[in-house]
Amino acid sequence: MKIAVLGTGAVGITIASKLIELGHQIMIGSRSKTNEKAIEFTNKFDQNASNGTFEEAAFFGEIIFNCIKGEFAIQALTSAEKGIRNKILIDVSIPVNTHNGAPLSLLPELCNTNSLGEEIQKNFPDTKVVKTLNTMWNTLMISPSMLKNGDHTNFICGNDDEAKAKVKSLLNEIGWKNETILDLGDIVGSRGTEATVLLWLRIWGATIGTFSLKVVN
Amino acid sequence: MKIAVLGTGAVGITIASKLIELGHQIMIGSRSKTNEKAIEFTNKFDQNASNGTFEEAAFFGEIIFNCIKGEFAIQALTSAEKGIRNKILIDVSIPVNTHNGAPLSLLPELCNTNSLGEEIQKNFPDTKVVKTLNTMWNTLMISPSMLKNGDHTNFICGNDDEAKAKVKSLLNEIGWKNETILDLGDIVGSRGTEATVLLWLRIWGATIGTFSLKVVN
Repeated sequence: MKIAVLGTGAVGITIASKLIELGHQIMIGSRSKTNEKAIEFTNKFDQNASNGTFEEAAFFGEIIFNCIKGEFAIQALTSAEKGIRNKILIDVSIPVNTHNGAPLSLLPELCNTNSLGEEIQKNFPDTKVVKTLNTMWNTLMISPSMLKNGDHTNFICGNDDEAKAKVKSLLNEIGWKNETILDLGDIVGSRGTEATVLLWLRIWGATIGTFSLKVVN
Repeated sequence: MKIAVLGTGAVGITIASKLIELGHQIMIGSRSKTNEKAIEFTNKFDQNASNGTFEEAAFFGEIIFNCIKGEFAIQALTSAEKGIRNKILIDVSIPVNTHNGAPLSLLPELCNTNSLGEEIQKNFPDTKVVKTLNTMWNTLMISPSMLKNGDHTNFICGNDDEAKAKVKSLLNEIGWKNETILDLGDIVGSRGTEATVLLWLRIWGATIGTFSLKVVN
């Protein structure tokens, strides 16, 4: 499948590399076509990998991953507006406020009674936003089995059931077993999964090594 | 031990009943001495149980549980200010905003860059606030083993290590094994554990029966 990965941070590159490994054709999108990390990615894989602007990548992808830094996501997606129309956008991003130093918090306008997932859905009503993979280390996103044989939880939410089913299928391909994917309903669930970063950061400070959350029931 | 439980909601009564069962002397605190649930509690246990105002209960307790509805907690604790001074206050409360209907959110002034745990600590600097048990069903608080033999996580945080050690010991008595109690550091950790209610509510909507969160590592 042709998949766009918007964002050249660790999350974007990690997901893009895994998708290449699975045989998909990937275009990495960034603000500028001369983005060094995007070019490095393209050069690393001699086929199936390419890079372009956010808009070019969005037009390329049948499915689009949003791995853009939360605070820039709306702006970047606006530049790719026509490309993401009527497509599934898998939103992995967290709206962390990086301006106030530690302890990190969420952008005030995108927490508690709102979330980045919802904000993207409101701004781009023709795009099918599916929020997932945003409560864990990026290594776990693409290798769930590296921790306890995959026995931990990945949350998913979004307004479109068909879109969620397609994303679940892609998650299965990546290695997520169905019983570890918990559907939290519509995109408002992003409030819960994005706010989990506040707990996540404290667990990170309190534990050693890779960890994740599991819903026990 | 003499323990005060402030608040007569389901959480307060559940915790108070368990502590009675463990042999502690409990005074339930409420706004008024004529609170029906507090009187019912006192009458149910012919010894070791009593009830009074928030202030009377706070003076009675060597350790105090705050199980007051989040939005009223500061006001109620202010009325008991002298009673809670220099004591451990175990804060179980969540600052849910009940004024805006569904979906429930946190009080805007007590989330993201603040929390009820921190707000209590700031208002009552001579009290040792320890936040714990606030990420789960109240039945699990006092019976962790009823779910997966207790194999799920209870978070704890607070500024005073000695106070946290005493609270951990009380948690052990209630049934929490040490390996399931995760210390998240100082009281700022409350931001993470209180915000977990946003995720919790969505998991509640998506699953059947009792559930809890476990940190897998």
